[in-house]
Amino acid sequence: MTKVIQGLLEPNEKKIVLLVLDGLGGLPLEAGGKTELESARTPHLDALAAGAECGLHLPIGHGITPGSAPGHLALFGYQPTDYPIGRGVVAALGIDFPMRAGDVAVRMNFASADGQGRITDRRAGRIPTEKCAELCEALGAVKIPGVEVFVRPVKDYRAVVVFRGPGLSDQVHDTDPQATGVKPRDPQAVSDRGKKTAETAAEFIRQALKILASREPANAVLMRGFAELPHIPSMKELFGLKPLALAVYPDYKGVSRLVGMDVVPELRDLEHQVESLAARWDKHDFFFVHHKYTDSRGEDGDFPAKVAEIEKVDAILPKILALKPDVLIVTGDHSTPALLKAHSSHPVPFLIHGRGVRPDAVREFGEKACTGGVWGVIPGAMLLRLALGYSDKLAKYGA
Amino acid sequence: MTKVIQGLLEPNEKKIVLLVLDGLGGLPLEAGGKTELESARTPHLDALAAGAECGLHLPIGHGITPGSAPGHLALFGYQPTDYPIGRGVVAALGIDFPMRAGDVAVRMNFASADGQGRITDRRAGRIPTEKCAELCEALGAVKIPGVEVFVRPVKDYRAVVVFRGPGLSDQVHDTDPQATGVKPRDPQAVSDRGKKTAETAAEFIRQALKILASREPANAVLMRGFAELPHIPSMKELFGLKPLALAVYPDYKGVSRLVGMDVVPELRDLEHQVESLAARWDKHDFFFVHHKYTDSRGEDGDFPAKVAEIEKVDAILPKILALKPDVLIVTGDHSTPALLKAHSSHPVPFLIHGRGVRPDAVREFGEKACTGGVWGVIPGAMLLRLALGYSDKLAKYGA
Repeated sequence: MTKVIQGLLEPNEKKIVLLVLDGLGGLPLEAGGKTELESARTPHLDALAAGAECGLHLPIGHGITPGSAPGHLALFGYQPTDYPIGRGVVAALGIDFPMRAGDVAVRMNFASADGQGRITDRRAGRIPTEKCAELCEALGAVKIPGVEVFVRPVKDYRAVVVFRGPGLSDQVHDTDPQATGVKPRDPQAVSDRGKKTAETAAEFIRQALKILASREPANAVLMRGFAELPHIPSMKELFGLKPLALAVYPDYKGVSRLVGMDVVPELRDLEHQVESLAARWDKHDFFFVHHKYTDSRGEDGDFPAKVAEIEKVDAILPKILALKPDVLIVTGDHSTPALLKAHSSHPVPFLIHGRGVRPDAVREFGEKACTGGVWGVIPGAMLLRLALGYSDKLAKYGA
Repeated sequence: MTKVIQGLLEPNEKKIVLLVLDGLGGLPLEAGGKTELESARTPHLDALAAGAECGLHLPIGHGITPGSAPGHLALFGYQPTDYPIGRGVVAALGIDFPMRAGDVAVRMNFASADGQGRITDRRAGRIPTEKCAELCEALGAVKIPGVEVFVRPVKDYRAVVVFRGPGLSDQVHDTDPQATGVKPRDPQAVSDRGKKTAETAAEFIRQALKILASREPANAVLMRGFAELPHIPSMKELFGLKPLALAVYPDYKGVSRLVGMDVVPELRDLEHQVESLAARWDKHDFFFVHHKYTDSRGEDGDFPAKVAEIEKVDAILPKILALKPDVLIVTGDHSTPALLKAHSSHPVPFLIHGRGVRPDAVREFGEKACTGGVWGVIPGAMLLRLALGYSDKLAKYGA
């Protein structure tokens, strides 16, 4: 069907806005109760829903809990299982590191360890980003024959390591034990293809621990998400779009770059994102506006704070609508119910609004209300197709 | 799944009627308003819906606007993207031209041109069909070495040309510039495989222009939709059916022939179609009844006239029901909202009625009402499968 869509592309200047409330889907705290979205006071979203087509989407498939990167790939029109992306790559792209084919990127946490090397804090007391940058610079002293090593700060205690050299691969297990009181695992190859990378990582860790020995609380490192750069055809190539990403968080810029989006570099908050959206309105035809904190508060298990984040997005909506997008999609990349403090596999409510849509019977934006929408539960990747259709970017199929 | 269905076929005498209101799906003229179907007074359709299973279907896929031929293929049980059909083929089959494998058919408009060959009217003042037939006969004088040429009238200014000979293909661009004030394009090959056909078409046009020189207002020709006969397995082969088409318009007879339907040759109107249906009731087990004018009035942008056409079909329903079909499907091949004056990608409402179905909660036939139907939004090709199931034409799968 991808080829069929490509054959029908008729790019035009009509504007599609994809507004993502990260981890939007939720759960009631008690039986018979309301979800975060249903509890939130969202007059603008409700008014939109009343004039929109609604439904729920499954980013990956039935029963599958999406990570952030594949959740977003689905919203960008890709079936995520066709394009596996490692966490390391997302992190590297998120900080604008210019990855090359063959590079292997790994997420690294600075952590704290006791005298026996057992992890006491997986986040090194959440050291600030400046401290992280200083440590990364110190780790620049690591030298491995035949492999270039790049260590870059991301945010707080999180960094990314990129290995460059022949024969490297993503076939290495995480060293992060995901627990305290135990030592990190040695880097182990998943398959023969991973041997050289595992050895490289082991040598990196050996030298790093020496350098960090006196740097408490950050005297240990944990690696996870060994990843190669995947080849993903761009949104331009697949859908004829000129897309722009307006995200605050690095990882979401990373996924956006993977699909060939232009990315606005430094954005502070929703207000700033929407200002920037308005300023670049004429230059693009697809705009991805990302709000992270609905997910963060869900992960915290803070139901009222997640409700408040949803209300913040609702409050900004009039400024987006003032731009008169031809198609506006509002949804999430997955569910993050505060009750679970984690991503979940529940389908995610969406609305698609615009002159071309045929409003259904849904009168408010919420999980339960959206089950009465025209679309039922559809694969996440279908949302972009609907948007292409309703913005007249696809020619008629056949005579 | 096609193979599975084939393995389960148990043909019987039970009757399936597929009643197609072409371009049925619509849009409200204003926010909060009703669509054409929702506005129409349709007591019989509403009563049917109340005892039926309802839903909406997507003939091709999310966001894709169907042409008439693929829209019908879906209703006949085929995934349209598996069987691309060129416009020329649809036109040739529509006039009963006996195409053979290897033939290339092209739609041709008679047009008007000025002294420099620039098109002044793409439809030659909409010359009547008799005039068109006379001109086609005159073009019978065209002789091309090694290629047989057939020129046949379709309707008004529209004709079809069939080239027969070795080495021909559909790999030729349209000559129709889709504009006035410019010359028609020369026939250009899309690929090497199209070279001979492009040369043949160029020679045909050269001779045709000589013959038509004095035939104002029809002194030019425009060609589009170069097409080869696709191989499509018949409905008999795939579904064990003995299907009959009852359509007034040539193109729909054409698509019906492509899937091996018998076609009633000369039908005037709905009344005549239903008479003919009754007369042939014993000879077939699948009946395709096609009403064109819902689409035509939608294309005209005439909302009330489309409503009136829907009401006409509603009024004829008792005569169809009097035949006691075992399964009756009522739907469209795509949406043609009067608001858009064109086909659109919106899903199309359907109902499936019969002794075997399990009525859902839908109480009237309309786009919004059908969103509450049991089936949600399904691929158009699934409707025929449901009909096979509810008419007991498929054996149990497995023990």
